[in-house]
Amino acid sequence: MADALDYARSNTERFREELFDFLRIPSVSARSEHDGDTEKAARWLAERLRAAGLTSEVIETPGHPVVLGEWRDAGPEAPTVLIYGHYDVQPPEPLDLWTSPPFEPTVREGRIYARGSADDKGQLHMHVKALESWLQGAGTLPINVVVVAEGEEEVGSENLAPFVEKYRERLACDAVVISDSAMFDEGLPSLLFSLRGLAYVEVHVRAAKGDLHSGAYGGAVANPAMALARMLATLHDENGRVTIPGFYDQVKEWDADTRSAIAGLPFDEERFRSGVGAPGLTGEAGFSTLERLWIRPTCEVNGLLSGYTGEGAKTVLPAKAMAKVSFRLVPDQDPKRIARLMEDHLRAVKPEGVAVEVVELHGGNPWRADPSGPLFDAAGRALEQAFGATPVLVGEGGSIPIVGDFERILGAPALLVGFALPGCNMHAPDEWFTIDNYDRGIGALVRLYDELGTSLRG
Amino acid sequence: MADALDYARSNTERFREELFDFLRIPSVSARSEHDGDTEKAARWLAERLRAAGLTSEVIETPGHPVVLGEWRDAGPEAPTVLIYGHYDVQPPEPLDLWTSPPFEPTVREGRIYARGSADDKGQLHMHVKALESWLQGAGTLPINVVVVAEGEEEVGSENLAPFVEKYRERLACDAVVISDSAMFDEGLPSLLFSLRGLAYVEVHVRAAKGDLHSGAYGGAVANPAMALARMLATLHDENGRVTIPGFYDQVKEWDADTRSAIAGLPFDEERFRSGVGAPGLTGEAGFSTLERLWIRPTCEVNGLLSGYTGEGAKTVLPAKAMAKVSFRLVPDQDPKRIARLMEDHLRAVKPEGVAVEVVELHGGNPWRADPSGPLFDAAGRALEQAFGATPVLVGEGGSIPIVGDFERILGAPALLVGFALPGCNMHAPDEWFTIDNYDRGIGALVRLYDELGTSLRG
Repeated sequence: MADALDYARSNTERFREELFDFLRIPSVSARSEHDGDTEKAARWLAERLRAAGLTSEVIETPGHPVVLGEWRDAGPEAPTVLIYGHYDVQPPEPLDLWTSPPFEPTVREGRIYARGSADDKGQLHMHVKALESWLQGAGTLPINVVVVAEGEEEVGSENLAPFVEKYRERLACDAVVISDSAMFDEGLPSLLFSLRGLAYVEVHVRAAKGDLHSGAYGGAVANPAMALARMLATLHDENGRVTIPGFYDQVKEWDADTRSAIAGLPFDEERFRSGVGAPGLTGEAGFSTLERLWIRPTCEVNGLLSGYTGEGAKTVLPAKAMAKVSFRLVPDQDPKRIARLMEDHLRAVKPEGVAVEVVELHGGNPWRADPSGPLFDAAGRALEQAFGATPVLVGEGGSIPIVGDFERILGAPALLVGFALPGCNMHAPDEWFTIDNYDRGIGALVRLYDELGTSLRG
Repeated sequence: MADALDYARSNTERFREELFDFLRIPSVSARSEHDGDTEKAARWLAERLRAAGLTSEVIETPGHPVVLGEWRDAGPEAPTVLIYGHYDVQPPEPLDLWTSPPFEPTVREGRIYARGSADDKGQLHMHVKALESWLQGAGTLPINVVVVAEGEEEVGSENLAPFVEKYRERLACDAVVISDSAMFDEGLPSLLFSLRGLAYVEVHVRAAKGDLHSGAYGGAVANPAMALARMLATLHDENGRVTIPGFYDQVKEWDADTRSAIAGLPFDEERFRSGVGAPGLTGEAGFSTLERLWIRPTCEVNGLLSGYTGEGAKTVLPAKAMAKVSFRLVPDQDPKRIARLMEDHLRAVKPEGVAVEVVELHGGNPWRADPSGPLFDAAGRALEQAFGATPVLVGEGGSIPIVGDFERILGAPALLVGFALPGCNMHAPDEWFTIDNYDRGIGALVRLYDELGTSLRG
């Protein structure tokens, strides 16, 4: 391992130059005018995997291709680790809010500013360089490796689960490692113990067949916007708990250890509040802010539309009203079941004079890791050595459905170890990643492969 | 009067030809590209008043001009009646929903289809022709007359109240007659006994300084759309009554006579419901549909907007939410007071973690006539003779603020006698007015002037 670490240290500058080349390719998966760039990023990555010492292929899917890298010379006794990442990026707009161009990596105060620097090209590239450090620096690797890099993470990963299903034999592994998340704070390496799931519905309320004059008809014909407001107002009680019957039935209580670990994190509530710029924080009674974000389910209105929304006063009695409502779910809530309970509830509380329709848009399962096994132990040791600090266990309020898909299809546990920092503007202008975390992170991954080689050995 | 009625009968065809000329002028007050047409309509009308035997002037205002017509030779003993109407029309769009062009009057099945046929050129023209019938057919008029025709009714009548203030001496009168409304049903002449007032506010709810990711922040930061829904849901109780403290304090109860007159009207509830296409009718408990529309105040959401409203699922925690909310008011509710009570109420029920702002947009006083005086008696007799049916007293759920302005500034009661029919598409494509009501209506107005000459004589 010393050779691998030496190799990494002595190639720091070149690694970063290469990363900049990767970041210069505008692989925006959502925009068909960038399809050539997305393809180019896939080929660039396959070439880098080959240069690192792996075999690689660009495999077509109905959407953007998957880059597959393999190295299986650690022998049958050694564990196999699947490394997942994505080479596509979010659209950079609005461009005028970028301090430097999104696809021209620029270093300011120790940060690399570029679209994809944190999410996820930078972190994916760290794995490629850690693999190269082993294979070129030490001539071997303590684990067998399969790299799966997709080009559709930012547009829903529609073709990834079918790909994993199709290649399940070839992708068979003992663990899945993903670096696409953030540390809890600078200098505080973090391991993810949970992701929330998602159920997303659209609610349509209708009364008259067309918009009416609110003077001529108001008072005798139901107002769908008012009816919708009344229905939405029934979704929470005074304590911020969701009131949909059965909503909490499948929620697993969290153990005291996890809750006290969360309570022990250096979280500054006032800094969080002023960061979002809200007049105050609020949420489910009996839970801290981090618990509300990580281990408790939510019900949110994501959008509202009805009637006249332009300037000034228009006296319209709207014919219809729409709300987009989504739920963040925790284990073992089931997205389809929650969408159905929502529909049942809305039908039960629907006021007179309106019709309601609930359309299910989108769903994803929640995920929870077992932090007591060899995977977390190995990662803990690697991170502690690389960062000089004991890693903390953190949750994530968002959803990454593919994590559950990997575990389900391949039967292997996932390890989410990310190196971005809070406020790094993933999905926003001026996305950044620190040079320090890039360099240290490569060292951490070099060590992680070594630790996994020992702790997962059959 | 026989000479006047004879004149009207023998000039039916010419009157209608002239009306068609009037309707061909696209006097759309809201569109500056039609300013020349609006001016042309004013001059056309002034010319017609002169031809009828009145003196007339086109008086400039900061907006479109007012056409003033006068005839004061009935002598100081005779009452003076102010006739109000408007020569501007609503925009005709959407044009593709018109069966025949909006500014090419076309007769189908006894109806004149054209923008302005009902609202209000057709009805204003009937007054001009009734005046002409007296002055050209009988050589005199039993009343002194001031005609005030504005060109901004469809854009808010901003300059009319200042005009009436400025010319209050010249406009001094014993009654104001307005024909800009509809009969309750075909063959059922109607007199308006009330108009509802209006208070219109915009409600803004804010939490974070910008939209947030609903996964990363949902559950711990307030959702302004959900907060707005909860606030709007507090505006009514289970019985459909407005719960804002003090809302009903100034509501005058209606007398048993008015309520039983309303109950006696031939109103087909099921036809009304299927006409608007709503699954059912609803409203304040203890009141009939017509009472809910005419004599009870309302609170309506006119518009809702928050977060993401496009296609598909976007997991945004909105930074803000907006509702447009208006109240239809009944005597003696005061628009400014109601807007203030609304603001106080929303501040009282505002959930934690959000800020609320209430902006007052627009207001107008409610109006109620005294149907027991000589004005209604005179109108009742004239309508009964012309239509062969006893007129009914009807309310109007909408607001015409200028009615209250006329009464307040000039100290004279208003009489609202309209000849359009339900479903005549005022403000919509295929606006129509029946030839029968046009012809009979002119006769009714000829008789009305006679009756007023007698009943209002000092």
